[in-house]
Amino acid sequence: MINITLPDGAIKKFEKGSSPFDVAKGISEGLARNIISAKFNDRTIEATTPLHQDGSLTLYTWNNDEGKKAFWHSTSHVVAQALEELYPGIKLTIGPAIENGFYYDVDFGEHTISEKDFPEIEKKALEIARGKHDFAMREVSKSDALTFYKKQNNSYKVELIENLNDGEITFCDHSSFTDLCRGGHIPNTGIIKAIKILSVAGAYWRGDENNKQLTRVYGISFPKQKELTEYLELLEEAKKRDHRKLGKELELFAFSQKVGQGLPLWLPKGAALRERLEDFLKKAQKKAGYEMVATPHIGQKELYVTSGHYAKYGEDSFQPIHTPKEDEEFLLKPMNCPHHCEIYNVSPFSYKDLPKRYAEFGTVYRYEQSGELHGLTRVRGFTQDDAHIFCTPDQLHEEFKNVIDLSLYVLGSLGFDNFTAQVSVRDLDQPEKYIGSVENWEKAEQAIIDAAEEKGLKYVIEKGEAAFYGPKLDFMVKDALGRQWQLGTIQVDYNLPERFDLTYKGSDNELHRPVMIHRAPFGSMERFVALLLEHTGGNFPLWLIPKQAIVLPISEKHEKYAEKVLKSLENHEIRALIDNRNETVGKKIREAELKKIPFMLIVGENEEQANTIAVRRHGGEDLGSIEIGAFSDLVSKEINSTLKSF
Amino acid sequence: MINITLPDGAIKKFEKGSSPFDVAKGISEGLARNIISAKFNDRTIEATTPLHQDGSLTLYTWNNDEGKKAFWHSTSHVVAQALEELYPGIKLTIGPAIENGFYYDVDFGEHTISEKDFPEIEKKALEIARGKHDFAMREVSKSDALTFYKKQNNSYKVELIENLNDGEITFCDHSSFTDLCRGGHIPNTGIIKAIKILSVAGAYWRGDENNKQLTRVYGISFPKQKELTEYLELLEEAKKRDHRKLGKELELFAFSQKVGQGLPLWLPKGAALRERLEDFLKKAQKKAGYEMVATPHIGQKELYVTSGHYAKYGEDSFQPIHTPKEDEEFLLKPMNCPHHCEIYNVSPFSYKDLPKRYAEFGTVYRYEQSGELHGLTRVRGFTQDDAHIFCTPDQLHEEFKNVIDLSLYVLGSLGFDNFTAQVSVRDLDQPEKYIGSVENWEKAEQAIIDAAEEKGLKYVIEKGEAAFYGPKLDFMVKDALGRQWQLGTIQVDYNLPERFDLTYKGSDNELHRPVMIHRAPFGSMERFVALLLEHTGGNFPLWLIPKQAIVLPISEKHEKYAEKVLKSLENHEIRALIDNRNETVGKKIREAELKKIPFMLIVGENEEQANTIAVRRHGGEDLGSIEIGAFSDLVSKEINSTLKSF
Repeated sequence: MINITLPDGAIKKFEKGSSPFDVAKGISEGLARNIISAKFNDRTIEATTPLHQDGSLTLYTWNNDEGKKAFWHSTSHVVAQALEELYPGIKLTIGPAIENGFYYDVDFGEHTISEKDFPEIEKKALEIARGKHDFAMREVSKSDALTFYKKQNNSYKVELIENLNDGEITFCDHSSFTDLCRGGHIPNTGIIKAIKILSVAGAYWRGDENNKQLTRVYGISFPKQKELTEYLELLEEAKKRDHRKLGKELELFAFSQKVGQGLPLWLPKGAALRERLEDFLKKAQKKAGYEMVATPHIGQKELYVTSGHYAKYGEDSFQPIHTPKEDEEFLLKPMNCPHHCEIYNVSPFSYKDLPKRYAEFGTVYRYEQSGELHGLTRVRGFTQDDAHIFCTPDQLHEEFKNVIDLSLYVLGSLGFDNFTAQVSVRDLDQPEKYIGSVENWEKAEQAIIDAAEEKGLKYVIEKGEAAFYGPKLDFMVKDALGRQWQLGTIQVDYNLPERFDLTYKGSDNELHRPVMIHRAPFGSMERFVALLLEHTGGNFPLWLIPKQAIVLPISEKHEKYAEKVLKSLENHEIRALIDNRNETVGKKIREAELKKIPFMLIVGENEEQANTIAVRRHGGEDLGSIEIGAFSDLVSKEINSTLKSF
Repeated sequence: MINITLPDGAIKKFEKGSSPFDVAKGISEGLARNIISAKFNDRTIEATTPLHQDGSLTLYTWNNDEGKKAFWHSTSHVVAQALEELYPGIKLTIGPAIENGFYYDVDFGEHTISEKDFPEIEKKALEIARGKHDFAMREVSKSDALTFYKKQNNSYKVELIENLNDGEITFCDHSSFTDLCRGGHIPNTGIIKAIKILSVAGAYWRGDENNKQLTRVYGISFPKQKELTEYLELLEEAKKRDHRKLGKELELFAFSQKVGQGLPLWLPKGAALRERLEDFLKKAQKKAGYEMVATPHIGQKELYVTSGHYAKYGEDSFQPIHTPKEDEEFLLKPMNCPHHCEIYNVSPFSYKDLPKRYAEFGTVYRYEQSGELHGLTRVRGFTQDDAHIFCTPDQLHEEFKNVIDLSLYVLGSLGFDNFTAQVSVRDLDQPEKYIGSVENWEKAEQAIIDAAEEKGLKYVIEKGEAAFYGPKLDFMVKDALGRQWQLGTIQVDYNLPERFDLTYKGSDNELHRPVMIHRAPFGSMERFVALLLEHTGGNFPLWLIPKQAIVLPISEKHEKYAEKVLKSLENHEIRALIDNRNETVGKKIREAELKKIPFMLIVGENEEQANTIAVRRHGGEDLGSIEIGAFSDLVSKEINSTLKSF
């Protein structure tokens, strides 16, 4: 008998050779039906793998991320088999599960495939799946493995095997198909009920552009057809909400080939939106005791040598800027912190002056390869809603909590209720990745965890995800489509104060080292606006939206009254415009709907007589004819329901 | 007899050989006493130079810039003589008049001079001046001139003469002193009643750092001792108002060696001041129909090749930024206009959409040699209150006038009443300096002059001062010390619309080229704040000043009431602080005076009882005990008296 420890801590006895499937059956038949993979002592195994010793076992179903991973990884075997059968002579390379689905990188040789081939591939793969073939792992010797793939003339797999050691090489068989594989599959292909090939793209072998370009086949699969249908609907909705598409339609931002890729131009409506976001944060920051500063977008190389950024990023960044005559070198600033440290260093501070909280909407520049750029989410220049708090070690805990409060206020005012906090700490196995003393790292990590605990945040700890200069807490939000984004960040830093020799005079009259907090509740204005677009589909909160109302005169006769209404709305600080084109009100309403304007104010004979407006909400709700004062109250009330004061 | 045309157009007859002095006597004895130099047919001459032909004559007194120039140039001869007598063997080089005084560049050989030697030099020079020696010009042959200076072993003068042609070489004699000189002197040394040596500095021969470093002796002189005294007082006052000194004292900005010279760091109080200025302009711009945009601080080299900036400035600017992997080149943006042109190009416009007015507080970077940098007035990175108006040719005139209105509003709200407009046009003799067609230049120059005329501006036309891409109108303001500064600028541009192929669809359905106006009422935030500091000595207009009031509790007992007062002031949107240090009210008042806080609000027993504040104005005026509401009204009234709404 062996002792199996379950996730709840319970230890159960099973016969030696029992599989995770047997363990599941011991718990419930229902669970056994759904189990598709398992983890035994930190190793992903099959549900059918016999267990020969004591250990911890976690069972995975479709509802676990690990379960999905096994499901999609298994599907990639099936799709690979289908591809081999349809395109004889192709060479398979690697085919992992990814966040949503899987891919397989294939050398198609003579063949080419395109979207029109997808249905045939899906059909063939489903045929195979329906055969309910078991996935079976087996160990193979290095020489047998090499012989197998040399016979197939597959130099890719041969290269992979050559880098492995004898004794750690396994093959997975199902149906007539065999693949080099580390394991982690569902029990059999029959569970796969729906397969969709999503796209194909070029990918270099091993990601190196000097190697041959392969074809990456992306796909996804589900245990139910209905789930695939829902997923495809979600994809469709995501396409509609793509911030690049909406940004263009709503005239918020643009890119120019001449200015350069990854360098957004904020158009008038976008710049105004961004300014409203900035003003909103400025106001809250002022109440929270922050002071704005302004610093240049370049700094001498020496500044970044001092900060450590140059050693860390210098070679991969935008290269230094030289001056024509003098022997000087400047860098585009990748971060605002070195500049803020220099501001701190302008005057001597005593402990009574701290905390100093310097805030700046600081635009920074970081090189990204052109292939990595994506709309506003991956750019080469972006504006951080940055601030650096310089405080005594005693103040750190309180300050960190205050920053959490501010971050929660920002997220709440913008309608993000679904978020988790991610506490990123060191990877203790890779100390060379981090600068600064172990003692300071320990203090900083503890300060973050304590603050998260006290604020009752739902948080996860991620090892190895810390910045090189300190640990951090990131807010991860889920958008309306359930996709996760990293937003605001709060970071503790004991390193820059050392490097810039920052000091304050303590009550003991001695000089001490302050602690620094880096924080940005939005993250960056670019990324935040992108997320907001995808989250709201362009239906921004009322306080933020570019135009809150549009006045629609029924005919030319009512234009004068419409102008009067507009003026009155302006006096009530409502952002509005008039559509006085010579079109029907029906058409004007349809177009205002497309422009996502929250309120349509129709004015005709009756309204002019009664000095009212007929209010129609975006989406169609009719609020009847009311006076402008009443409409203004309605708008204020709706704004106040999301935009609380800090 | 010869015919002499006077500036008023009158033609008078004089005997051949008459001097400007004789002409002056013919007008009035008073004028004759004051005349110190003259211009005959565009050539500066002595008051005693005999005139042998018909021509135009302008007489200069001390009150003309040209008169001062002759006065100071003459003094430089006298000082040179004094230096030769005091330091035998020194070599004189050149000694021109400058804006305020004169300098002489001298190779002092073995000698060194410093501030402690100034009184002796002044004394010796005044001794010479009192000798009432006439300045007498004489022509010399090149060989005689060379012999003269070779005998003195003066290689500098020899070099100067070698570059001159026989027949154009003149010497000026006075007392025992002779100097190579083109002329333009006062009649005799006796008019010089006061001489001050101001400073010495290093200066390379001919401004070339590969040459020997000489000593530049700066000085100034006056026809009355009283005028020197007044000038020195002004200098003293200017030193007190030096924006670098005030900027430090008021904690507005700082520089960091690590960040780099010429790159200002705006400290919290400075950043807040700047933001108030920006908000003030934003508000007026919004009313004037401008839209804010935001663009990156770099652009591809190609962008500036298109705009023409690269050809014009490329080699003298910050050098291109390269990317690590891809073959890309970016430049720090020296101007915002190319970016705004690219924004214009995002969507097609019809004539009905114009004018488009894109505004941005855009930070630009321009290389300046480190020796040229000066506080906030000469920097390497600065923020322009920039905007570009794209309009039809028909709209240009109206738009230009609107921009003049906005500029006048800005100057008025900040207390600058003393300004002139400078219209900068082409130098017709140097067409190679400008890009674009002659026809467009003519149209643009005329548009500016017409608008200036219609707005009734006091303007001067400056030939050769236009930008390379178009003519402009600059506002020149005089500060409280009478010094002239260049501030806001308005420029017409027909060139960039061509280069960026900007178009709009006219009512004829054809594509047309818009006209562009570049404008910046402040000029740059850095330069403007510098000027404002020197103009106001830090006593900013009430609406702008960082802290409008300071609450001074008489003792610890009244701190609570002081806090209540502060809160109430905040509710009235008055920026205030409390000085609750354990110091006497007298000391607190003295320090608040130094900090230039406009209102001191003293609170003690009586005030707490009566719920009032005792108001003392900066400078000492006692306004008695009043309620906070009344004080708020007083502040509002004072603000509204300078800050009109646009």
